[in-house]
Amino acid sequence: MSALPPAVQAPPPALDTLHRCRALVRPALAAAVERLHPWMAEIAAYSFGWCEVGGAPAAAPGGKGVRQALAVLGAESAGGDGRAGIPAAVAVELVHAFSLLHDDIMDGDATRRRRPAVWKAYGTGPAVLAGDALFALAVETLAAAPGGPGAVRLLSAALADLVRGQADDLLFTARPCAGPERVTPGEYRAMAEHKTGALLGCAAALGAALGGAGERAVTALDRAGRHLGVAFQLVDDVLGIWGDPEVTGKPVGGDLREGKKTFPVLFALGSPAARRLPALLGPAGCAEEAAALIEEAGGRTAALAEARARTALARELITGLPGTGAAGELLGLLDHLVDRDL
Amino acid sequence: MSALPPAVQAPPPALDTLHRCRALVRPALAAAVERLHPWMAEIAAYSFGWCEVGGAPAAAPGGKGVRQALAVLGAESAGGDGRAGIPAAVAVELVHAFSLLHDDIMDGDATRRRRPAVWKAYGTGPAVLAGDALFALAVETLAAAPGGPGAVRLLSAALADLVRGQADDLLFTARPCAGPERVTPGEYRAMAEHKTGALLGCAAALGAALGGAGERAVTALDRAGRHLGVAFQLVDDVLGIWGDPEVTGKPVGGDLREGKKTFPVLFALGSPAARRLPALLGPAGCAEEAAALIEEAGGRTAALAEARARTALARELITGLPGTGAAGELLGLLDHLVDRDL
Repeated sequence: MSALPPAVQAPPPALDTLHRCRALVRPALAAAVERLHPWMAEIAAYSFGWCEVGGAPAAAPGGKGVRQALAVLGAESAGGDGRAGIPAAVAVELVHAFSLLHDDIMDGDATRRRRPAVWKAYGTGPAVLAGDALFALAVETLAAAPGGPGAVRLLSAALADLVRGQADDLLFTARPCAGPERVTPGEYRAMAEHKTGALLGCAAALGAALGGAGERAVTALDRAGRHLGVAFQLVDDVLGIWGDPEVTGKPVGGDLREGKKTFPVLFALGSPAARRLPALLGPAGCAEEAAALIEEAGGRTAALAEARARTALARELITGLPGTGAAGELLGLLDHLVDRDL
Repeated sequence: MSALPPAVQAPPPALDTLHRCRALVRPALAAAVERLHPWMAEIAAYSFGWCEVGGAPAAAPGGKGVRQALAVLGAESAGGDGRAGIPAAVAVELVHAFSLLHDDIMDGDATRRRRPAVWKAYGTGPAVLAGDALFALAVETLAAAPGGPGAVRLLSAALADLVRGQADDLLFTARPCAGPERVTPGEYRAMAEHKTGALLGCAAALGAALGGAGERAVTALDRAGRHLGVAFQLVDDVLGIWGDPEVTGKPVGGDLREGKKTFPVLFALGSPAARRLPALLGPAGCAEEAAALIEEAGGRTAALAEARARTALARELITGLPGTGAAGELLGLLDHLVDRDL
């Protein structure tokens, strides 16, 4: 018996939540990966940071495991045992890993978490195939879980959104910086919701569905995750321009020199104050001057205001859930992800 | 009313069956593709032969549509309307298209059905993403169908086998032609069953499941399709060495000059009569002499015997089905696929 009623206990810090959920999910995730073809299992283990190329054990940094935590907390928010959310947690982590493998090929990103990206370490063909293997394993895991066709429908909708977001992201790079063909902040929001938000929302919603939550709670968590995804992306954009390189691990002005069409840039491009901005972007531009101009045009303020608004919406959806045993931890996670050294 | 009782009517020729099923499935397949992101929808349409790069309508040769036909006939074999099998037909055609897109990248195949492969026409990144989009759409289509989680489980098992077969196929190329590390004919059979048979079996089984067939019939059709896949692959291997280039569209001896480890080659490599064979394979070898040696070592006979045995097993499984209204057409399709100008 607990000395205090649960409502009075302070929720554990977000890092403890992430750690607890990773520990809960890890055996099932490892067991799923072991069902793969041995070659594919090694590539998957490499991508999770569990081994080196060749299979020697490693403890390289994997992801934070935000998606698996959302699935476990989703199940707990339904008043159930977090273990009910494990198949959802495994499925969303596998989907996330699949999308990183394929996105790194498409974006030509040679490193991931300070190690060679899978396509650099194993070759493009094997990286494509390992992504497919992870994708198939995710569907298989969820189809075998007791969640029924509703769970697979939730996952496949998120997968469709994920692809849609990545397609838009790839197309944005070819669009002009000015004129009627330029990317609008609204298009960017939709892309971020699809590319980042859909899987976060799906993680929490799937966990809740497997934990026995009603449709209202499932939908609320899906929407909360989507808002969180947009907020997270916007904060990332701000840190990519004005963040401390010591903390972000990214070079100062890197996003601007790469000419990335992030939200602050797109917002500023719509302002007459930033007419000189297009010339300052890209490898031949001036990142410092561009950053100042974007700030002057309100790009930074708008991005942070939107991130705060999205976080508030997510917070409202979570606190409005019935029987919110896990709400404290969900909110803690939310703050941890959005309030990153701003 | 029909003038003759159905059992007396001769089944239509296989090409009529394929045509009828394509016509039945096409509207649903086109509607599914239209749900994709417009860019992904164009790439999908190009891969089906429906349009050129840029979207202008075309009537390029698509596939024969064997998988969709198996799904429709599977539903009909359960005594139901073939339309019940349409979601299965759409799902397996989408999965087939996905696997061709990704396999062509992995294998470096620059053409497909006499047109540039998707990765050549649109680039590797877009081809990876379009494959993912087709994969997600297949799962979504089936999850929305009334087949329930059993249908998604059947599809995801086939997907896992598909990836497993492709992984083995890629690994086979790096294995030696002699010694204990060489690929055995048994390993090759397993690869062919996974890479080609699993989806054929899944197509018929899924169609039957959606048509209301019992578990016995579903399993029988799955096994029949797997045997068919192996038989089809073995016939392909024989045609790749001894086929008429006018009919196969492949250059004489192409498979041997590429050093492909096909079944006849692997069988011959296990025979003391073919000790000189490894030196004759590959671009520096002699395809004509290699073909003669493989035939002498029994590679051709063994491949054809195995193909016939697999076809007989498939035939037995199909004729053993209860209420086999569609059995005649299924058997006609079987013969059409295996008896190709041998």
